[in-house]
Amino acid sequence: MKKPIRGIIPPLVTPLSDNDTLDIDGLERLIEHTILGGVHGIFILGTTGEFASLSYKVRHQLIEQTCKIVKGRIPVFAGISDSAFAESLSLARKASDCGADAVVLTPPYYFASGQPELLEYLKRIMVQMPLPLFIYNMPANTKVVFEPQTVLAASSIPGIIGMKDSSSDLAYFKQIQYLLRDRKDFSFLVGPEEFLSEFVLTGGHGGVNGGANMFPKLYVSLYNASVNRDFETIFKLQEKVMQISTTIYKVGHHSSSYLKGLKCALSVIGICGDFMAEPFHRFKEPERTKIRQHLEDLNYRELL
Amino acid sequence: MKKPIRGIIPPLVTPLSDNDTLDIDGLERLIEHTILGGVHGIFILGTTGEFASLSYKVRHQLIEQTCKIVKGRIPVFAGISDSAFAESLSLARKASDCGADAVVLTPPYYFASGQPELLEYLKRIMVQMPLPLFIYNMPANTKVVFEPQTVLAASSIPGIIGMKDSSSDLAYFKQIQYLLRDRKDFSFLVGPEEFLSEFVLTGGHGGVNGGANMFPKLYVSLYNASVNRDFETIFKLQEKVMQISTTIYKVGHHSSSYLKGLKCALSVIGICGDFMAEPFHRFKEPERTKIRQHLEDLNYRELL
Amino acid sequence: MKKPIRGIIPPLVTPLSDNDTLDIDGLERLIEHTILGGVHGIFILGTTGEFASLSYKVRHQLIEQTCKIVKGRIPVFAGISDSAFAESLSLARKASDCGADAVVLTPPYYFASGQPELLEYLKRIMVQMPLPLFIYNMPANTKVVFEPQTVLAASSIPGIIGMKDSSSDLAYFKQIQYLLRDRKDFSFLVGPEEFLSEFVLTGGHGGVNGGANMFPKLYVSLYNASVNRDFETIFKLQEKVMQISTTIYKVGHHSSSYLKGLKCALSVIGICGDFMAEPFHRFKEPERTKIRQHLEDLNYRELL
Amino acid sequence: MKKPIRGIIPPLVTPLSDNDTLDIDGLERLIEHTILGGVHGIFILGTTGEFASLSYKVRHQLIEQTCKIVKGRIPVFAGISDSAFAESLSLARKASDCGADAVVLTPPYYFASGQPELLEYLKRIMVQMPLPLFIYNMPANTKVVFEPQTVLAASSIPGIIGMKDSSSDLAYFKQIQYLLRDRKDFSFLVGPEEFLSEFVLTGGHGGVNGGANMFPKLYVSLYNASVNRDFETIFKLQEKVMQISTTIYKVGHHSSSYLKGLKCALSVIGICGDFMAEPFHRFKEPERTKIRQHLEDLNYRELL
Repeated sequence: MKKPIRGIIPPLVTPLSDNDTLDIDGLERLIEHTILGGVHGIFILGTTGEFASLSYKVRHQLIEQTCKIVKGRIPVFAGISDSAFAESLSLARKASDCGADAVVLTPPYYFASGQPELLEYLKRIMVQMPLPLFIYNMPANTKVVFEPQTVLAASSIPGIIGMKDSSSDLAYFKQIQYLLRDRKDFSFLVGPEEFLSEFVLTGGHGGVNGGANMFPKLYVSLYNASVNRDFETIFKLQEKVMQISTTIYKVGHHSSSYLKGLKCALSVIGICGDFMAEPFHRFKEPERTKIRQHLEDLNYRELL
Repeated sequence: MKKPIRGIIPPLVTPLSDNDTLDIDGLERLIEHTILGGVHGIFILGTTGEFASLSYKVRHQLIEQTCKIVKGRIPVFAGISDSAFAESLSLARKASDCGADAVVLTPPYYFASGQPELLEYLKRIMVQMPLPLFIYNMPANTKVVFEPQTVLAASSIPGIIGMKDSSSDLAYFKQIQYLLRDRKDFSFLVGPEEFLSEFVLTGGHGGVNGGANMFPKLYVSLYNASVNRDFETIFKLQEKVMQISTTIYKVGHHSSSYLKGLKCALSVIGICGDFMAEPFHRFKEPERTKIRQHLEDLNYRELL
Repeated sequence: MKKPIRGIIPPLVTPLSDNDTLDIDGLERLIEHTILGGVHGIFILGTTGEFASLSYKVRHQLIEQTCKIVKGRIPVFAGISDSAFAESLSLARKASDCGADAVVLTPPYYFASGQPELLEYLKRIMVQMPLPLFIYNMPANTKVVFEPQTVLAASSIPGIIGMKDSSSDLAYFKQIQYLLRDRKDFSFLVGPEEFLSEFVLTGGHGGVNGGANMFPKLYVSLYNASVNRDFETIFKLQEKVMQISTTIYKVGHHSSSYLKGLKCALSVIGICGDFMAEPFHRFKEPERTKIRQHLEDLNYRELL
Repeated sequence: MKKPIRGIIPPLVTPLSDNDTLDIDGLERLIEHTILGGVHGIFILGTTGEFASLSYKVRHQLIEQTCKIVKGRIPVFAGISDSAFAESLSLARKASDCGADAVVLTPPYYFASGQPELLEYLKRIMVQMPLPLFIYNMPANTKVVFEPQTVLAASSIPGIIGMKDSSSDLAYFKQIQYLLRDRKDFSFLVGPEEFLSEFVLTGGHGGVNGGANMFPKLYVSLYNASVNRDFETIFKLQEKVMQISTTIYKVGHHSSSYLKGLKCALSVIGICGDFMAEPFHRFKEPERTKIRQHLEDLNYRELL
């Protein structure tokens, strides 16, 4: 991989046929769909991939199957976040054995660590880490923020090559970019697709955007237009991205709306099923009808 | 077990000899120490037991070893909390196979579920649950509260026999006690030792108090005095409990102070080592010196 | 006033006839009702009194009218919490001029101060404070907790004579009681009525309980029973308190349910109107019908 | 004012000579400095202006003096946020009487209102509002977010002409921009200066950036470069903005660091004093020395 890593790297949903059973056919269709859409890599076992709800057996199997399907055509990033140090390392070794390219790690998410504890944790885990690592900031789920000074200190630990920020706090992420301005090989990727373009226009490296599961071409095109400062195209495509953000992700009443809407839409489109891991459950018919209507309003077939 | 379950049930710390290696000798000494101290049960793999930081291998091993050491002398409660449904069930089956008496479950703690999602999750997991279950409310770590109406609805799911509340919000827990006032067999246990006595004086069933790892007799005596409304003894013992709470648990700067202080004190006393699972690390000498002094100020030998 | 101050001190609702117009007749009826019910003092301009929603003119008027109506029969505590130092002092001077007995102060509630800033603020405001002062912990509204060590430091500032805690975190408040155990004249009062009894049984001094607006006798009797360790009476009365807590305070969907339910019930009972200051509005007929039914289920006439 | 309102509108600090005494000379220097720097308007009584810490007398005086000094040269926006409806209206009337151009309003910030309550509040206050109004989203201080659907509903209330978002959550603000895409006259202004450029590049209207108190030319130039898509200039100026963000605003330990740093820097530069309203206090010499050094590192004289 050329550093810094750039582009659209969808956080893959995990196709399931039952609460703890991988839908390998669905996974294959999804991966081929995103590769065909021109993505620059894929990220499995992220928040969008419901990683924390999957058993270890399934997480290991997903790493294996993904690497087998991808066959080196694009880089594979494997999430190894866990509340247990040993399980994170075990996932990292699996990823390495299967040929993944990098791993992605949040803070441990049951106990809230202080910043010095978090830095110490990173130092210790990196000693045994077999692959390059992205820091993954996701405070809504982990309760803990990687403070800018912690990232600055962590950036000098060998093996840490980038950061994905899903906090949606762009002022925060720009502070980190500035503090690490001399690390030209360090990659900055942003989660929320709503400001992918803004982020890339001023030097961000790309997006880990959930919508790219459905419409990889849309996000890849928006990324390219942003790199090229092609504002006409940016405005046209951003309109679609915002339409998705304010419709498909907003059916439902809980913080799970985004995940449920995304998986439901993938199922309506015919890419993979909408079975969700506990504690979530797929949308029932009334919500599914809304998702279908939102997709029609998008003229979604033209986006595929 | 006679219902409702009553008394002092310490949330056992997990003695470790390395980041993911159980210290079985330490575990044995700790268990014998608490049984000798008169506790009414023990709870392994709770927050105090650093469950979330342990690999699955170690969690399963801990269940096995604990049941083997206890040999049915007192009830064993096994924590099965996990972000993954399948892993919680796997821990529950292990607990059942090993002869544990009940299991204890928080909400899944990476994704924050809405209350209807949480109730649905409980219903689904209870279908396959091989042992009676305590609901475990721990919002500081899980981000999700079991709202009173959710507990009321959950209390009619077969197999749910009690609740442990570690929110420290006594108004909340008393609302739940009132809503479930007709469930005479439902057990209410409180985490924070600071108001164990208050809770038991007005009908609470007992405490899951971390300090009982160090001084089981103290907490058992306070429980008994509270049951007997022996106020003179209550005030005398509460003084000690509050001294512990405001000294041993308050060395250090992060939310881990309680855990680090407790494990350090156990090590000073000679019951088990103070090795902690990542992302935490044992106190260094300056903090250890403070803990030692706090123990001396307590006249801790008299409490053993 | 004899120190420490003890007993039931209702946080008075503020009867209004329009968004910023005091209902003085309603205020008089409410005050006479609580005095007749045997309360040990009244607290105006607290959270239950919607202080923050009232203009300064009305706040000053309320202090004046209350002192005039009470005429020294019981102590009057006046809330002086504000985001502006100068306005808090101005309210304190008004309270002093009108003959109030003490004032009550939260942290400034727009800017969140750090603990050293908070302590400094207390020191500076006390220099000019004309009346004794209670610290008022209300983190749900102010975002800032008075940490135990801050209260310990503050307790030696001349003029600070007690603390009201509405955090509902009894472990927290017991830590503060323990740290200040040598300050025999310092008063500890608790907001949540759900554990008034537990708090008083083990040495707490009383309650600032909203329900005592409606049923002062109930809370005074529960306080007395708790002081006397009369458990039979405690259990009987606590049943009523919990019934109120889980019905009248739980109609409605927002955090305003408590306030709206309380004011609506006062209006149904005939003590004062239910007009609320912006941003809240009184319950409409469907909710009012529920409140009326909850009051009937309580046999509320027997509680008056 | 031409709608939508565009450009750099600094949230003015409030120069004070004592805790509740306006420094009118400082105010005049500050206003002239920003007008000379080319700002498109000024916003008084915002968070940066410590509005909530000022007495009503001073707030009214500040409106009066500011309008007098500005003399119509640029639009004046007056903050009217308050916990009390009547005081907000009183401030709005003062602003109108003095010739201010618009007012700016957060949700009431002691009680947390639900979204329907918040919308109702806006409807009621707008009936009596004498000036056009900006919605001001500042959840870190008010605890309440204006949810996108609430803003959408509010945007059709006559008199609401724009929104300032200080949440730093750009995904959130872009959702609102999208939902209101047909309201061509509605103004979107962003608080955090760290992504002013990104926001303006894709259609945002401008920034309410604290740093423009010190260096109005810098922020105006960055705004202009962003409007003109002059990326070379953008990158050069953003470097300065990020340097300010990561140095001057980061001395100190509490959330007040930004405010203290800004006022201290203004004092070092010689524009106005650094006296702060309670509960904050100016930096002492060690912190001031750091600020001075940070300013030197910026070559700040070239930015004036």
